[in-house]
Amino acid sequence: MARPSLREKLASSAVDTLHSFGLKGCSIQDITEAAGVPKGSFFNHFENKEDLAIDALRRYLEAARPDMLFDESVPPLERLKNHFSYLSERLLSLGYGRGCMLGLFAAEVGENQPKMREELRSIFDTWCGAVESVLREAQTKGEVDPRHDPGQMARFIVNAWEGATIRLKIERDRRPIDDFMNTAFKALLK
Amino acid sequence: MARPSLREKLASSAVDTLHSFGLKGCSIQDITEAAGVPKGSFFNHFENKEDLAIDALRRYLEAARPDMLFDESVPPLERLKNHFSYLSERLLSLGYGRGCMLGLFAAEVGENQPKMREELRSIFDTWCGAVESVLREAQTKGEVDPRHDPGQMARFIVNAWEGATIRLKIERDRRPIDDFMNTAFKALLK
Repeated sequence: MARPSLREKLASSAVDTLHSFGLKGCSIQDITEAAGVPKGSFFNHFENKEDLAIDALRRYLEAARPDMLFDESVPPLERLKNHFSYLSERLLSLGYGRGCMLGLFAAEVGENQPKMREELRSIFDTWCGAVESVLREAQTKGEVDPRHDPGQMARFIVNAWEGATIRLKIERDRRPIDDFMNTAFKALLK
Repeated sequence: MARPSLREKLASSAVDTLHSFGLKGCSIQDITEAAGVPKGSFFNHFENKEDLAIDALRRYLEAARPDMLFDESVPPLERLKNHFSYLSERLLSLGYGRGCMLGLFAAEVGENQPKMREELRSIFDTWCGAVESVLREAQTKGEVDPRHDPGQMARFIVNAWEGATIRLKIERDRRPIDDFMNTAFKALLK
């Protein structure tokens, strides 16, 4: 029973450490120290830091309530707004020191990390696809201008969100998030 | 005469090394090796890596042709579009491996780098202020909906641009840039 529990301790603590310091800003030793597990135990559970970071990314996303985008009891545009409001409040609850983990890892990922890049590519594709579906539904219901290309609009919005959360780290106040919410949901999707 | 030339060699080469590998992805040794200067010479010219990175950021920005935003011979909305087109082509000419240096450094900057954070905050403020002025002028000339808050719109667009360039690193094709240009200049600013 000890091994799975040690793995869980390491993996769940790593979400926080990697989100705070980034892929390159913390070592395996920093991660095991923060988790309170022996450094030597790391390689019993993960191949390398990239492998652990992919696990951390999945845990981070599970907690992002992706199900909210599929809740058809809520009208599509309101559902999309609720989704980004939820992501906003979650990020702001951590202070202003962190952007979205996806954008942070994407900024850092190097040529020598094809596995992480592929993971990020796939996550962004899935997320943009879900946002696109909601936008299509909103267009059908007359909530969003039918002339917009929903795929392009979805990708633009997701990328704009990532940029806003990175700016948050510099501004250290909620303005980049408010600018995103107001512009995306008032000026763009009206 | 030797010292200024060594400094210049180091500083101009560092723009490329830091843009490729990020603040945390290269050491002082990596930077001096890429520049072909002795490692020991580094501290004759810069206090530390952060100090050199701030110099690199300024060089990067000078080459971004900020003057284009102030060229009143071009109508304001077209001028703004030309500005982002110029930034796009410049980034794409480097391949798909790099986002905008501002966003990359912003994603990486840590609590222990207040000087870099302050530099980025100031650069973003200046840039957003210039974009805001162009938007105000575009509103006066009837090119942009006067109901938009030009300050908020400027910050949103700049942050959306940063997010698009980070996505570029993951997608490895120009789509994030095209999504940005099309959505910002067709759907948003019409």
